[in-house]
Amino acid sequence: MSTNLFEKHKETLDKAVNALHERTFYAHFPEHPKAYGPDAPVQGKEAFDATLNNRFGELLQSGTNGDIGEEQSPYWNKDIGVTYPSASVDTLIENGEAAFKQWSKTSVADRVGILMESLEGVSKRFHEIANATQHTTGQSYVMSFQASGPHAADRALEAIAMGYKELTRFPENVNWVKPMGRISLQLDKTFAPIPKGIGLVIGCSTFPTWNTVPGLYADLVTGNAAIVKPHPKAVLPIAIFIAEIQKVLQANGLDPNTVQLAVDGSDKLIAKDLAEHPAVKLIDYTGGNAFGDYIESLASRTKAVFTEKAGINPAIIDSANDLRAVMRNLAFSVSLYSGQMCTAPQNFFIPATGIPTADGETVSYEDAVALLKNEVASLALHPKMGAGTLGAIQNTTTLQRAEGAKDLGGTMVLEAPKVVNPKFEQARIRATSIIEVDAANKEVYEQELFGPVIIVIKTKDTMESLNLAKQMAAKHGAITCSVYCTNEGKTKTIIEEMNSVFTPVSLNLVGYAFVNQHAAFSDFHVTGGNPAGNASFTDPGYINRRFVWVGNRTPA
Amino acid sequence: MSTNLFEKHKETLDKAVNALHERTFYAHFPEHPKAYGPDAPVQGKEAFDATLNNRFGELLQSGTNGDIGEEQSPYWNKDIGVTYPSASVDTLIENGEAAFKQWSKTSVADRVGILMESLEGVSKRFHEIANATQHTTGQSYVMSFQASGPHAADRALEAIAMGYKELTRFPENVNWVKPMGRISLQLDKTFAPIPKGIGLVIGCSTFPTWNTVPGLYADLVTGNAAIVKPHPKAVLPIAIFIAEIQKVLQANGLDPNTVQLAVDGSDKLIAKDLAEHPAVKLIDYTGGNAFGDYIESLASRTKAVFTEKAGINPAIIDSANDLRAVMRNLAFSVSLYSGQMCTAPQNFFIPATGIPTADGETVSYEDAVALLKNEVASLALHPKMGAGTLGAIQNTTTLQRAEGAKDLGGTMVLEAPKVVNPKFEQARIRATSIIEVDAANKEVYEQELFGPVIIVIKTKDTMESLNLAKQMAAKHGAITCSVYCTNEGKTKTIIEEMNSVFTPVSLNLVGYAFVNQHAAFSDFHVTGGNPAGNASFTDPGYINRRFVWVGNRTPA
Repeated sequence: MSTNLFEKHKETLDKAVNALHERTFYAHFPEHPKAYGPDAPVQGKEAFDATLNNRFGELLQSGTNGDIGEEQSPYWNKDIGVTYPSASVDTLIENGEAAFKQWSKTSVADRVGILMESLEGVSKRFHEIANATQHTTGQSYVMSFQASGPHAADRALEAIAMGYKELTRFPENVNWVKPMGRISLQLDKTFAPIPKGIGLVIGCSTFPTWNTVPGLYADLVTGNAAIVKPHPKAVLPIAIFIAEIQKVLQANGLDPNTVQLAVDGSDKLIAKDLAEHPAVKLIDYTGGNAFGDYIESLASRTKAVFTEKAGINPAIIDSANDLRAVMRNLAFSVSLYSGQMCTAPQNFFIPATGIPTADGETVSYEDAVALLKNEVASLALHPKMGAGTLGAIQNTTTLQRAEGAKDLGGTMVLEAPKVVNPKFEQARIRATSIIEVDAANKEVYEQELFGPVIIVIKTKDTMESLNLAKQMAAKHGAITCSVYCTNEGKTKTIIEEMNSVFTPVSLNLVGYAFVNQHAAFSDFHVTGGNPAGNASFTDPGYINRRFVWVGNRTPA
Repeated sequence: MSTNLFEKHKETLDKAVNALHERTFYAHFPEHPKAYGPDAPVQGKEAFDATLNNRFGELLQSGTNGDIGEEQSPYWNKDIGVTYPSASVDTLIENGEAAFKQWSKTSVADRVGILMESLEGVSKRFHEIANATQHTTGQSYVMSFQASGPHAADRALEAIAMGYKELTRFPENVNWVKPMGRISLQLDKTFAPIPKGIGLVIGCSTFPTWNTVPGLYADLVTGNAAIVKPHPKAVLPIAIFIAEIQKVLQANGLDPNTVQLAVDGSDKLIAKDLAEHPAVKLIDYTGGNAFGDYIESLASRTKAVFTEKAGINPAIIDSANDLRAVMRNLAFSVSLYSGQMCTAPQNFFIPATGIPTADGETVSYEDAVALLKNEVASLALHPKMGAGTLGAIQNTTTLQRAEGAKDLGGTMVLEAPKVVNPKFEQARIRATSIIEVDAANKEVYEQELFGPVIIVIKTKDTMESLNLAKQMAAKHGAITCSVYCTNEGKTKTIIEEMNSVFTPVSLNLVGYAFVNQHAAFSDFHVTGGNPAGNASFTDPGYINRRFVWVGNRTPA
């Protein structure tokens, strides 16, 4: 195979490698839906419509034995009718092992070129992926477009770039000359990053590409074969990515089984069979804690595991210049996709002594809660923004949990206002509820309430807020921590303490900066240091644990 | 604290960072004993003599509660009488936690400066360390000097250099500006490598500094506090390192408890209590498989574990230009320190069809074995080189295992010749025995025989040799693989196959290049990919698993 693809994408690769080390703003794939041409939206919609109630026939993998599919649109509240070829675990493993033999010997440059070419292919289908994402996850169209399209592709590019950097970190060949008095000892040495085998990537139902492609591309760039086991209810978006990778593999004379889609059904899940298989050396997982803890328990010397589980994200409100702007910002963060983002705040720690503001006045605790309540309700009921911000609820469990919020034990401060999406009258839509509890009622807020429920926790003072937030991050995990504080010394303490439990702090965000947003090439997503997950998009360890440096020597 | 120490050592640091990335020859600390001045040997001996039958009084750590020590000289075959202050596990942990608070907030530059300064202090005591190493491990004086002195210090420097590189990999502060049409979103971001807590470093009896300082300096440079639990029979060499680090800490106003020596006695070992303590977040371990497997079992999301256990190193002999030169080279590798190196070959796979050589003749299997036998015996009995090469046997278990070699089940090809060291007539000295078995007798050679016993395995052909060596490396681990092969295609296959089980190959080494030697800044020591250990001196993962990147954001 030629290295044309590598040369073709080299400039972008170099930019990406620089960007992730500089951590300044960089996006290779523009996030604006209009950036992909005037025809792209219609073509994307047409392609998606053609797939509905049809078999997804693009996969090039071999040994499939049937067709399954059970995705439902949270907007239509009905099946989308797409089926995918299924395969037995044995077949998937055999295919993967055979493909690994070839892929592991494919040069780093060729692997990088092929993977970057696949992203170019995917980028032509961002609008199709947006439709697929909207009608499996319940995200709004724009969020579906951005999260599953350009943002995901940039995260994939980031993994390729970090992979390239690490895989080429040490020279392939070295002449080692050790002076030993009159003579010298000369050895020719080679250094090679040896991949591990098959990587399994287990996806989640809410972010089927954004959370899957980092591990997938990290596996592939490091020379491992990959099997992607998506959530049975969110397959189509990632199936399109995989089809594009397989196409480029085949076009370059390589085995399309290097990456395989492993669709299963809720009645017969195969994640455990795959994860426990001795040929599976790497597992990436995004999803709930129970299965995530099980996946982490499989970690061993021969199986590296990368998880993103659930965190319970705190917001610590101490003081603010403009408390209304604060609450407006937070209201958006909790309402966006109805709190179904792993980065959304859940627990709002507000001191009983109130919130000092810029004008010298202190907003009382009660008024602060009222401000939050009003902003959350106003956003939900906003005729232009409400339904679009909330999107739809991906699954009925989340819906039921939100509906059961009144029984959690706190005081219901805000009953979720009823919101209708005029374009999708059947949509599973649900606005945010707010519960209020005293700091002593830990059992209420010491659980993750994935979805549109937030809890206001009345604390004695900010130090109690901090202590509780810190304890909970250490015990249950946190992916983000939103802090509002105008006192410099207190801010320093809060940041140090939250960072000490490996929780990043977003300070005083107002306006268009939201705590939920983690930008590729700049924000590490999940630190890997607390129970919210053991890995980070994309730090060096996310790549380096997927291969092993081996050196050989011979006299020169 | 000033950054003077950082500036003082910056040039060396830069050289070390470059060297480990270029992997060409580099040594900051010369390995020649004469390089440290004409008075150094005598001064080192005097310092060692003064410590004998005395209390090691240099440690600056607090809360000690008694004096213990049970080291024996394998050369004198008696106790050296040195005692060390001991401390309870609770005290060690409390001290470590308190010191961590300060050390974790000490800047990377200051940490690097202090650690490099400590190595300069240690380098003035290399001859003292050599004596201490000789009379605890049984290594020869020159080997003791090199392994525990300059080679260990270079490995420590390598860990500091890789640490510095990784800790400064991302910027501390970034202004992130995202264009959003008419406006732009601006965030100030900070990125910090947050250390984990207390690191425990468990040493072994044969290489008390070389195998301990990489993990120790890796812990410290990344901002973790360290507790070093040496083998009770090999304390003094590492105690000197620790005393030097504590001195520099104290001189710079920092808590000497940042690194603590935790000496225990064979009657009351404390490694498990320390390892299982929740405050211990990192464990480095060198030693046998049983305890190493236990240590690996402690690995969790909150406890990172770095092990070097035992491998069973193969030598695959297929063909050679000069088979006598081959056997001479291997004879030295197995005899050096009586096979008590983790890198020494144990299993010699030789095909029944014999060994083709450069002159077109094939040396028969029997003649090949005879050549090996003669070279091993000649070296042992060499009046000038024999005793010095063999050194002494560190402990009686190793001695008994060697003496029991005749009962292992194979044919005794070479009974260990009796060797006397005229300078140390009481020394526990033992030359190498050679056993021969058929490839079918796996139970004989599928065990590690640490010490002076090697096994010749008669195989059908080199492909059988390779398959067996590969299987065993995958199942039991291997740190080195020595290969002799003059056929290019076969060589490529052997290297690929052994590398696929993460075993490095040293090809056709003769003369002064020995498979056992792993040079700092160039050779990765242990790959971390097979059961011989899960970590590598010093790949990026050896550093990156000791801290967590955390980023914070606030509007610009």
